[in-house]
Amino acid sequence: METFYVVPEEQHNALVAAAYKKRGYSSQEAAAGARFCAEASRHGIRTHNALKALHLDHFLGSAAGGCVPKAKLEKIKTPFRASQVWNANRKLGQATGYAAIEQAIKLADKYGVGMVSVDNAFHYLWGGGYVMDAAKRGYIAYTNCTAALAEVVPFGGKFPTLGTNPHSWGFPTTDAIGYPIVIDWATSVVAMGRVQQLLREGKQLPPNAAVDENGAPTTDPARAKYLIPFGAHKGYGLALMNEIIGAFIGGSVPTLRNRWDKITEGEKGTCAFFFQVWKPEAMSAGAFAKGRNQAQNVKAVIADILGHGNEGCMLPGQLEAQAAARCAKNGGLLFSEAEINAFNEIAAEARKARWKLNDFKVAE
Amino acid sequence: METFYVVPEEQHNALVAAAYKKRGYSSQEAAAGARFCAEASRHGIRTHNALKALHLDHFLGSAAGGCVPKAKLEKIKTPFRASQVWNANRKLGQATGYAAIEQAIKLADKYGVGMVSVDNAFHYLWGGGYVMDAAKRGYIAYTNCTAALAEVVPFGGKFPTLGTNPHSWGFPTTDAIGYPIVIDWATSVVAMGRVQQLLREGKQLPPNAAVDENGAPTTDPARAKYLIPFGAHKGYGLALMNEIIGAFIGGSVPTLRNRWDKITEGEKGTCAFFFQVWKPEAMSAGAFAKGRNQAQNVKAVIADILGHGNEGCMLPGQLEAQAAARCAKNGGLLFSEAEINAFNEIAAEARKARWKLNDFKVAE
Repeated sequence: METFYVVPEEQHNALVAAAYKKRGYSSQEAAAGARFCAEASRHGIRTHNALKALHLDHFLGSAAGGCVPKAKLEKIKTPFRASQVWNANRKLGQATGYAAIEQAIKLADKYGVGMVSVDNAFHYLWGGGYVMDAAKRGYIAYTNCTAALAEVVPFGGKFPTLGTNPHSWGFPTTDAIGYPIVIDWATSVVAMGRVQQLLREGKQLPPNAAVDENGAPTTDPARAKYLIPFGAHKGYGLALMNEIIGAFIGGSVPTLRNRWDKITEGEKGTCAFFFQVWKPEAMSAGAFAKGRNQAQNVKAVIADILGHGNEGCMLPGQLEAQAAARCAKNGGLLFSEAEINAFNEIAAEARKARWKLNDFKVAE
Repeated sequence: METFYVVPEEQHNALVAAAYKKRGYSSQEAAAGARFCAEASRHGIRTHNALKALHLDHFLGSAAGGCVPKAKLEKIKTPFRASQVWNANRKLGQATGYAAIEQAIKLADKYGVGMVSVDNAFHYLWGGGYVMDAAKRGYIAYTNCTAALAEVVPFGGKFPTLGTNPHSWGFPTTDAIGYPIVIDWATSVVAMGRVQQLLREGKQLPPNAAVDENGAPTTDPARAKYLIPFGAHKGYGLALMNEIIGAFIGGSVPTLRNRWDKITEGEKGTCAFFFQVWKPEAMSAGAFAKGRNQAQNVKAVIADILGHGNEGCMLPGQLEAQAAARCAKNGGLLFSEAEINAFNEIAAEARKARWKLNDFKVAE
């Protein structure tokens, strides 16, 4: 089993925030950025931790023009009271995401449903984090975004014109099962990072996950160039949806997105975000079987689904809850030696003290 | 190529409405039922045409207690202005669905987003029909429902505790591409009807579509007993979602749904519906690239997705649009000889004149 070291959350957040501030972000942005990355690490989302966030910021963000430190969120005027549209002006994704879900919650409190569409956004990392936050507070939440780069080939196509375009839904099921159900995945079978990992490890891809440069399916990670949506035409539809929603908001053509070297005068290269929050009280008909209340009814339905011989099935969000429980038990965030070494590169950039492996206890 | 006969839409609607009225439905319900079935047939949705609708009504509906002719839609009081909750009191699914999407449109006109949750609903047949209707009128629409029977096994499970639980999204893309994009599918790889069809034809199922009575995957339609969600844990999450949303609305445990013989005092067996409509104007940040307007931007994004060698790809909704164009060209709805024979069983039940095959022209 891989060895993990327990890094106190304050120490993690201080370094990550310092790194963001060194790159020009405000204290508030840096704090939101660090807080969100801590949540990703707490819930075992190693692909979207602070290392990934700061790496992305370097390659597509503040160093590349895709993200602008201290940008202001700008509300666009519309006559529609349960929905808002924002121009994020390329503000840090985590700060934008937190603000948008907060606003959607406020709208849902009043209208039963709240919707926030965001133009000119920068990568928000892990959609599950925003909807999980809302779900822990008692709301149903949904988000999607157009993923940074078009790496996915449409069903039956040859060339990548879709992002890995994730969808994330969170449900307030903590009372029912101890944690929120969070359904959260990209619409490609695998991520490009997984292709590279399998290449390093000398392993094959699953079938129908990638195509070569001519659009022919391949399981060889060395030949895999573009990704394929999961579930044939069904996953394709889900990937397409983010592009269409993005197009209604203000997103530009997918093949130019974040390709800053290709973007000519008048074109756009930014992402779009879409958030919704629904208030469970605004969905309840109040006539639950056997005199249950709403939370008890949700609990009964989940118990039925995982009964009848299905007791070994997982629920979406369960692994994340288990990861968070392990962090809580160990009293900090868990990182591998390789990750701690990578944090020390961040420390060098931010001119902060290096983390010493011996200072951290090994996680149980 | 299969031969189709052109049945005038008025003739189809008159017979279907008469059949509903014979079973006790009001003129308004019968008209909604017939209109919806005509839309399904027009768009090539042969699995959810009037024959299926009247068959379902017989086995799970008015003859079984799942659907109640002349039931009244009842609005539940809530303080939330952009969302409504209804008790459908088991009203005919098509009449309920049309009324709900209409209400969601009204809410979206005012609030930017409208949401209607429906308890005690009866099968609405083809979710795509409602969102397509809204999309043709300029709205983005979404619906899901808990499917009639639990026939799908959770990912990693053995026993069917989930419906085939469909999701349907419609987008107003007629200006951009000539028809609305409609993403519409069940969350099982195949429907149970498809298993039976393959059995009759002596063909095999695709892999990972069904399990036998012990929960072991099988491609033999004779051994296939329960269905599997598409896309492993991803489709499982999408199937689960309908059950969770249904549970918040008022749905009861999935394994009792529509199992009227098993439902004891105080339990429920009805379905739940969930509708949303979003107004595109409430999502537009107004800053499209190259001075495009919103519709032009949607068109540019779709052109980019289907460009670059992807010109042969389909869009969701394209087959439906092609079917509708063929109906329009032929001046009626298209049915096979077997379907016309089945309509004549309906005619006998409704005490209406039989349809004579020779009266119909053969479709081009």
